[in-house]
Amino acid sequence: MLHAQVVGNAVASTKHPSLGGFKMLLVQPLDADGAAAGTPIVALDTLGAGLHQRVVVSSDGIAARGLVHDEKSPARMFIQAIIDEVEA
Amino acid sequence: MLHAQVVGNAVASTKHPSLGGFKMLLVQPLDADGAAAGTPIVALDTLGAGLHQRVVVSSDGIAARGLVHDEKSPARMFIQAIIDEVEA
Amino acid sequence: MLHAQVVGNAVASTKHPSLGGFKMLLVQPLDADGAAAGTPIVALDTLGAGLHQRVVVSSDGIAARGLVHDEKSPARMFIQAIIDEVEA
Amino acid sequence: MLHAQVVGNAVASTKHPSLGGFKMLLVQPLDADGAAAGTPIVALDTLGAGLHQRVVVSSDGIAARGLVHDEKSPARMFIQAIIDEVEA
Amino acid sequence: MLHAQVVGNAVASTKHPSLGGFKMLLVQPLDADGAAAGTPIVALDTLGAGLHQRVVVSSDGIAARGLVHDEKSPARMFIQAIIDEVEA
Repeated sequence: MLHAQVVGNAVASTKHPSLGGFKMLLVQPLDADGAAAGTPIVALDTLGAGLHQRVVVSSDGIAARGLVHDEKSPARMFIQAIIDEVEA
Repeated sequence: MLHAQVVGNAVASTKHPSLGGFKMLLVQPLDADGAAAGTPIVALDTLGAGLHQRVVVSSDGIAARGLVHDEKSPARMFIQAIIDEVEA
Repeated sequence: MLHAQVVGNAVASTKHPSLGGFKMLLVQPLDADGAAAGTPIVALDTLGAGLHQRVVVSSDGIAARGLVHDEKSPARMFIQAIIDEVEA
Repeated sequence: MLHAQVVGNAVASTKHPSLGGFKMLLVQPLDADGAAAGTPIVALDTLGAGLHQRVVVSSDGIAARGLVHDEKSPARMFIQAIIDEVEA
Repeated sequence: MLHAQVVGNAVASTKHPSLGGFKMLLVQPLDADGAAAGTPIVALDTLGAGLHQRVVVSSDGIAARGLVHDEKSPARMFIQAIIDEVEA
């Protein structure tokens, strides 16, 4: 369950059919202080996460296929929570 | 089974319904000497791990869905042990 | 769902039979600015991604075995989208 | 199948019940020359691996749940071989 | 599907029974230029990959258990192709 920040939106006309209709966000993993750490990934979004918002990203295939309603979909990463704040 | 330390608590009002009612801890992977190493992640907690405590984090989807009682949940990471000490 | 760039094409005469007939692309994960970050991997391609194109790579075994029509195949990584642009 | 070295033993009184009775070793991934590389993890041990021994660590959930005889266990990492030597 | 190079052979007399009879190669992930990048892993080999050869490594549990004919085996990583060349 990745702690990350929305840094962009990937547009792709050629893609697996099960991804159609879903926003593909580019999300950047963050370190504990909120700085960029590691390689960004692409995640589907149905919660309406905006640019620069902090999110929790799921990497679970079973849940992702449920989200896109296609049991053979390659979808795996998607936004499962929008973080209001991190109490340290 | 990640060796990590609790460094915060993520608060999110917009999230997957299966995550409701669970504390979402921000945990920082540690190196063998206990220093921060790699990117922090978010993990559910039912053992009551406190700030700065060392924990063992599971990344297993089957066990996580059992924890939240939802076979379609995106939950994957959760605290499976609170470390008392590491004998080296 | 890895954000990466096609940097080459791996040719292999000795391989698992289920990989036969599929292009094996070498893809390089990218950071948010499009620079190389992390270790490249090999991914099957059926969308016709060209050299230097930005792609989204799936790591899902179930979807990959569906792609190669072999439920015991070791295939896991494949191109699931060709990125036209990333809006930041 | 991680190439690692045993660097400690994690003691935890609060843990998932399926982990009871198993030694939890702290293992450090190694590079090709045997130097520390990457973040250590926690792995169950039933082969009797000793401090500083080189081991091969499995990350497979199905095999791990078989080891602890609990199909809902979060166990995933365990020692699957003790390395006598690496011929280069 | 890791892009890697064979850098050694791990010998282990104490190991999970399902690994018996298989060569355990130490493989080093490579970057796009063929230099070492990241942490080496152990992979089973049935294709006869030699020292210094470039290979594609699978991390798929289902395929690996099929390879060793043991549905409870911890095997996951194995050589699925020997690379003749990478066209860039």
